[in-house]
Amino acid sequence: MNTTNPQLNKHGELQHLLTIEGLPRDVITRILDTAAPFTELVHQEEKKLPLLRGKSVFNLFFENSTRTRTTFEIAAKRLSADVINLNINTSSTAKGETLLDTVDNLAAMQADMFVVRHASSGAPFLIAQHLAATKQDHIRVVNAGDGRHAHPTQGLLDMYTIRHYKKDFTKLTVAIVGDILHSRVARSQIHALSTLGVPEIRAIAPKTLIPTAAERMGVKVFHDMREGLKGVDVVMMLRLQNERMLGALLPSPQEYFKNYGLTPEKLALAKPDAIVMHPGPMNRGVEIDSAVADGGQAVILPQVTFGIAVRMAVMSMLAGN
Amino acid sequence: MNTTNPQLNKHGELQHLLTIEGLPRDVITRILDTAAPFTELVHQEEKKLPLLRGKSVFNLFFENSTRTRTTFEIAAKRLSADVINLNINTSSTAKGETLLDTVDNLAAMQADMFVVRHASSGAPFLIAQHLAATKQDHIRVVNAGDGRHAHPTQGLLDMYTIRHYKKDFTKLTVAIVGDILHSRVARSQIHALSTLGVPEIRAIAPKTLIPTAAERMGVKVFHDMREGLKGVDVVMMLRLQNERMLGALLPSPQEYFKNYGLTPEKLALAKPDAIVMHPGPMNRGVEIDSAVADGGQAVILPQVTFGIAVRMAVMSMLAGN
Amino acid sequence: MNTTNPQLNKHGELQHLLTIEGLPRDVITRILDTAAPFTELVHQEEKKLPLLRGKSVFNLFFENSTRTRTTFEIAAKRLSADVINLNINTSSTAKGETLLDTVDNLAAMQADMFVVRHASSGAPFLIAQHLAATKQDHIRVVNAGDGRHAHPTQGLLDMYTIRHYKKDFTKLTVAIVGDILHSRVARSQIHALSTLGVPEIRAIAPKTLIPTAAERMGVKVFHDMREGLKGVDVVMMLRLQNERMLGALLPSPQEYFKNYGLTPEKLALAKPDAIVMHPGPMNRGVEIDSAVADGGQAVILPQVTFGIAVRMAVMSMLAGN
Repeated sequence: MNTTNPQLNKHGELQHLLTIEGLPRDVITRILDTAAPFTELVHQEEKKLPLLRGKSVFNLFFENSTRTRTTFEIAAKRLSADVINLNINTSSTAKGETLLDTVDNLAAMQADMFVVRHASSGAPFLIAQHLAATKQDHIRVVNAGDGRHAHPTQGLLDMYTIRHYKKDFTKLTVAIVGDILHSRVARSQIHALSTLGVPEIRAIAPKTLIPTAAERMGVKVFHDMREGLKGVDVVMMLRLQNERMLGALLPSPQEYFKNYGLTPEKLALAKPDAIVMHPGPMNRGVEIDSAVADGGQAVILPQVTFGIAVRMAVMSMLAGN
Repeated sequence: MNTTNPQLNKHGELQHLLTIEGLPRDVITRILDTAAPFTELVHQEEKKLPLLRGKSVFNLFFENSTRTRTTFEIAAKRLSADVINLNINTSSTAKGETLLDTVDNLAAMQADMFVVRHASSGAPFLIAQHLAATKQDHIRVVNAGDGRHAHPTQGLLDMYTIRHYKKDFTKLTVAIVGDILHSRVARSQIHALSTLGVPEIRAIAPKTLIPTAAERMGVKVFHDMREGLKGVDVVMMLRLQNERMLGALLPSPQEYFKNYGLTPEKLALAKPDAIVMHPGPMNRGVEIDSAVADGGQAVILPQVTFGIAVRMAVMSMLAGN
Repeated sequence: MNTTNPQLNKHGELQHLLTIEGLPRDVITRILDTAAPFTELVHQEEKKLPLLRGKSVFNLFFENSTRTRTTFEIAAKRLSADVINLNINTSSTAKGETLLDTVDNLAAMQADMFVVRHASSGAPFLIAQHLAATKQDHIRVVNAGDGRHAHPTQGLLDMYTIRHYKKDFTKLTVAIVGDILHSRVARSQIHALSTLGVPEIRAIAPKTLIPTAAERMGVKVFHDMREGLKGVDVVMMLRLQNERMLGALLPSPQEYFKNYGLTPEKLALAKPDAIVMHPGPMNRGVEIDSAVADGGQAVILPQVTFGIAVRMAVMSMLAGN
């Protein structure tokens, strides 16, 4: 493990994917470049590649997410890996076993890769660190979302999508809209956009849903959505979690939609060729209007398709390095 | 999509399998013919065929059914497909995503086939229609049971079973016994039997469990089981759902068994070589006596074996057309 | 089926694996010998062997156990089998279907092997017997733990581990520590150790957790852990089930740890090169101290690795015989 960046080995190659923070621009670019040919597989009769043939990929989901788990399962199977799905809330940890005992056990089953989703920030990092300390770091770790910390494959697929439609990051104005405070997706997006040289990143949210450190991360904060959307090239919507809608931080879903829901009228303030992104699943009528979600500027479904390719790229690079 | 029959393309080839209603006789016959060699695979050392190699089959079960899901999973794996199981009640729809958003997302993951089970009648049709409207109808839909509407692969495997034992449909008297009102299985059976030219189809049930439209579907209704079974070639029992047993439509399971349970004594009224079928799982002592279920006239387990072959036939035809 | 030992065919070859009790020494030895090369697969790029190619292995878990299910799933996939996971508590038995109807149905789906976990002692035996009675005994049964009766693959992997570290069984003193009364693991260990010729088997437990028949099984009973550990070569810890901790049989987890928890100080009474085993998942601070669990004498993680190889050995022998 590289001490300055535990995701990279001493040759600067990706060893784990834990967070986009601190990932060098050329590593991100290499991931996106590697993903590109995988998006073409869909047009072929045979969609499978033998790059992970005979490898065992464990989906360790300590937090339930059928959608994200499915994208990793498909990506791994298209690389010919054996995939083992584990929902750990129903498993040994319920029997009182510690996280690291569970990891050691699965490692002893000769796992090659752990895809980890966990409600606690830092859990995938802890696992990677433990594997290094116990000389098992031939096992790769991919963070599939940890607490409020990071969701790096989401951030990367978002970058793939932006590059696909906008080519050059260095001339863009990008707005991220919604519950930035609680969002691991937003954190990963901001780190990726900064690293790739986006000159203006805007965060649009009510005061209760913006982290105090936002401006330190180099973003411009807007509480007025109309102000924030003016002239942007990319609108990245965030999902409003149900628990937030019912909580004390927001008045009501209707009120939220009025102020922060993306409608055609608000979208008209962005550049005419602006694209609209969303990590899914969408709350139609809460953070996004159906006319926008299904409209010509939305690239929400291509995001999903690119997401499979990006996850295949990450997995094959980790297995190859 | 063919506007008169959305399951067939303009060449009259099967594109989706949504319902047996309206399916031409030659299409049904072709499915049964295609299934025949698949029943022989069991005797071979290697049970797998490469017909769906590299294809992604999604089992979308919005309603839980381990047994049906398993039969499709086995059928798809024997055709070398990658199978992704999704129990959607625990997934995104719980997060408020709409059915069609879920479908669009999975389609964007480059699915090749959706096997859909849903509590609402018409859900698989809605999905097929949506795929056509969004130009994604290279993705095939198989209805694995929708509400009270249809369960076409069950109907087809039943036809396979009858043809296997009785050869010629055009000389048969077939009785369907049980809760016809709530049964998607019965609906699919009646459509299939009619199309294949069975001259006499009987429905045997208490008045509370027979649809008012039964006679319009061309069946003869009997409320007295002994009357209805006289001289039949085939007895198709239905499963009595637990919720029905406890409900207001029936006096008690014991009373039901007395009147509509298939006992050796009642079965003796059918032709001596009559076969007994059941879609499973059986309620022994409710709709069927163990002496019949385990007796020489029962073909209930062959139905299961033929069911795998019929599902392989449907999947390989859909993938090939 | 062999009438004196239903696990063996008339040539004395393994047909099912139901229990270690009565299994001849040479059969056990052959399993361990077969497992040995499978432990080397980990060092190869390609971990898969084609020995179960095209076979359908059903994991029938009537009792939930993600860990054990995962070990069998990995073992079967490394042998190239198709694996179908069934958690049966959520399935047909909930719909009132009997165990044997479920088995018949899955057999009719052309299963090749059932891996069975069940809360009732004897369930796998009942299934094997039923398959023989219905002339379906080409389907193999592996007991993955039944009630308090047996957990033969655990017993076998424990023997593999002991042989790996100690070579010769006939000179060893082995102590089993913990809740022997309720433990299917302990039963399988005792039968295996006896058959392989271990001259001294000790059972260390409080009076409330030792079966009255223990001494008839040829073990020496100790209630004082310090006495029991003196000079042993192998310490096999058992997991203390949570329900036991809260129950009437024990005062408290703290009290249990004081008397029967394996600490470095108690372990020092064993031979200096004694190994420490545990079937997992561990309750640290209840039956085992972390200093021991993570210490140099523990071989708990190698047990897991050997467990995959032993399960591969059992499955490939059953498929081959």
